[in-house]
Amino acid sequence: MLYAVILAGGKGERFWPWSRANRPKQLLPITGAKTMLEETVDRVLPLIPEDRILVVTGKDLVKPIAKGCSQLKARNIIAEPCSRNTAPAIGLAAITLQAKDPQAMLVVLSADHQIRPRDKFLAALSTAVQCAQEEDCLVTFGISPTRPETGYGYIEVGEQLSAAVGGVVYRVKEFKEKPTRLMAQKFYLDKSYLWNSGMFVWKADVVLRAIAAHMPDLSRGLKLVASKKLKKDRDRAIEKLYRKTPSVSIDYGIMEKADNVVVIKGGFIWDDVGTWTAMRRIHKPDQEGNVIIGHGLAKDSFECILANEDGGVIATLGVSDLIVARKANCVLVVHVSRAQDVRDLVEKLAEIPDMKLYL
Amino acid sequence: MLYAVILAGGKGERFWPWSRANRPKQLLPITGAKTMLEETVDRVLPLIPEDRILVVTGKDLVKPIAKGCSQLKARNIIAEPCSRNTAPAIGLAAITLQAKDPQAMLVVLSADHQIRPRDKFLAALSTAVQCAQEEDCLVTFGISPTRPETGYGYIEVGEQLSAAVGGVVYRVKEFKEKPTRLMAQKFYLDKSYLWNSGMFVWKADVVLRAIAAHMPDLSRGLKLVASKKLKKDRDRAIEKLYRKTPSVSIDYGIMEKADNVVVIKGGFIWDDVGTWTAMRRIHKPDQEGNVIIGHGLAKDSFECILANEDGGVIATLGVSDLIVARKANCVLVVHVSRAQDVRDLVEKLAEIPDMKLYL
Repeated sequence: MLYAVILAGGKGERFWPWSRANRPKQLLPITGAKTMLEETVDRVLPLIPEDRILVVTGKDLVKPIAKGCSQLKARNIIAEPCSRNTAPAIGLAAITLQAKDPQAMLVVLSADHQIRPRDKFLAALSTAVQCAQEEDCLVTFGISPTRPETGYGYIEVGEQLSAAVGGVVYRVKEFKEKPTRLMAQKFYLDKSYLWNSGMFVWKADVVLRAIAAHMPDLSRGLKLVASKKLKKDRDRAIEKLYRKTPSVSIDYGIMEKADNVVVIKGGFIWDDVGTWTAMRRIHKPDQEGNVIIGHGLAKDSFECILANEDGGVIATLGVSDLIVARKANCVLVVHVSRAQDVRDLVEKLAEIPDMKLYL
Repeated sequence: MLYAVILAGGKGERFWPWSRANRPKQLLPITGAKTMLEETVDRVLPLIPEDRILVVTGKDLVKPIAKGCSQLKARNIIAEPCSRNTAPAIGLAAITLQAKDPQAMLVVLSADHQIRPRDKFLAALSTAVQCAQEEDCLVTFGISPTRPETGYGYIEVGEQLSAAVGGVVYRVKEFKEKPTRLMAQKFYLDKSYLWNSGMFVWKADVVLRAIAAHMPDLSRGLKLVASKKLKKDRDRAIEKLYRKTPSVSIDYGIMEKADNVVVIKGGFIWDDVGTWTAMRRIHKPDQEGNVIIGHGLAKDSFECILANEDGGVIATLGVSDLIVARKANCVLVVHVSRAQDVRDLVEKLAEIPDMKLYL
């Protein structure tokens, strides 16, 4: 059976002050009227029913997520004791699902991506599922770059394997880490590079075998978790596993090493909504290049993003290339070129006594 | 007898969002722990007792001022029906005081200037009073420029008349309107120009004669006000006078035209605290040139002013030469070079429906 595994462990610090520790990006209505997590759930509902949609998240976020996303079954929220990047999260979901359904097929999604239109996404998903079913391969989704983005990883495609309505399927030649500006420009012009979207389709069995082959320590820990019959024993095994396992992404942990990886070039528009600058892609800028969310006035200002909460006002005068974001009594002003570094700023704030309140 | 007349009719829009319509700059603790109006009252108390300190302000501000400045006698607040710049305000105070004390000597001050140290100011004040007493002249205070400021008017000094502990007294050669950058630099280097501080000393009788000579319409209106015995008749006459009188500054209305004007070069430090950039002079900037008031963090930021209310936080990253001010749910971000134009921004905000709430 087909399951969705939504990774929702991120803190979304780069969206401070809209995002807070107990209400990260995936629980904010950044891309529409619903929260990003709800939109992610809605997106797959035509293919996967509610009771087969799982979320993996940090233990502190279980309650906010259960409260904020009514379509989710509370029992389908898998809690991680701490954050260890995507490999342990995916492994834990795979071993959990395999235990109750040895034929489980997993669609691994992020809770904070924007994808449009849904039809094209679902078509790509169907092609991916068929591929993963027939070939026992690890399927990833690649997106044709629309700009020389340095904030994404890239996939160099190899031999074309097939072409379906959902997209062309290629063998993966190489995964590329986030590139320099120069490399990103090369990748953007060269049609053989795709953005690595961080979404995957595979059988639980296939991904667990890949973990066993390339991340043996994690594999052993997961098997120990699976061997426990009682919930409290299982929770203790998870706790122990997470304490000792390093933070490793699934890309680095298995995708870059496995030889049965294929990529589907999807026909949908994808954005990881990674920083405030994504607002410029989600909302159409005005004639001066400004994006204004909520009450705001940008006088003699250009190429700015004003992200205001309901109520209140943000007014700018004589400035350009700034992001100004407000939530309650917290204000962020950052040059657009430094949007990636808002996380560092938040870490710096965390070091100041009495600032916890605002994070 | 000696009276202080404090002009407190300003709206201080350039200090939005700290200043609001019902709580303008003079009612904010911008330069110290007390409000600027309270500091102004405190400053003259050694020379002038509370019951001879008057305030002239707009009728909407009478209550906030009476509430916010405990040293003031409620009966000493003169309400203007509307704002008409300084000439009508000073005329109204002079005619009011002359009616009860024909020998009244007025010290005209602004409610929103910063002056240090008090001793030197009081010494200059004493010299000015003596001068106005003996010579029946219009005395103004000039300040030696410490920068080529384009936001102030200037006074070109003429012949030196005397020198006292309180300062050197000169005949005034010419009043100069706010200069261009080039002229300001010339004035700054040439020692014969002083800043026009907008503070004056004169007998009620002398200033009223000057008004009669140079602003006959205003003079007639004031005399009509003085002729009314009943408060309600007087109020009606004031109402009528203000409706028809144009907005004229005392500088333009009489000082530039009268021939009995002298200027005292005071030994005190003076700042009109006209825009947010004054914060850089009131508070010592840190090593990166930033001034941070309240909770704030300026990471990789230079030459910025972060003016935060109590509580909340302003965080900047990778920006320079910005003023970021927050009060409650209102945020201002303005390039330092545009601090003078915050008033225009506020006027623009006032044109937007539902924005009144924030002004």
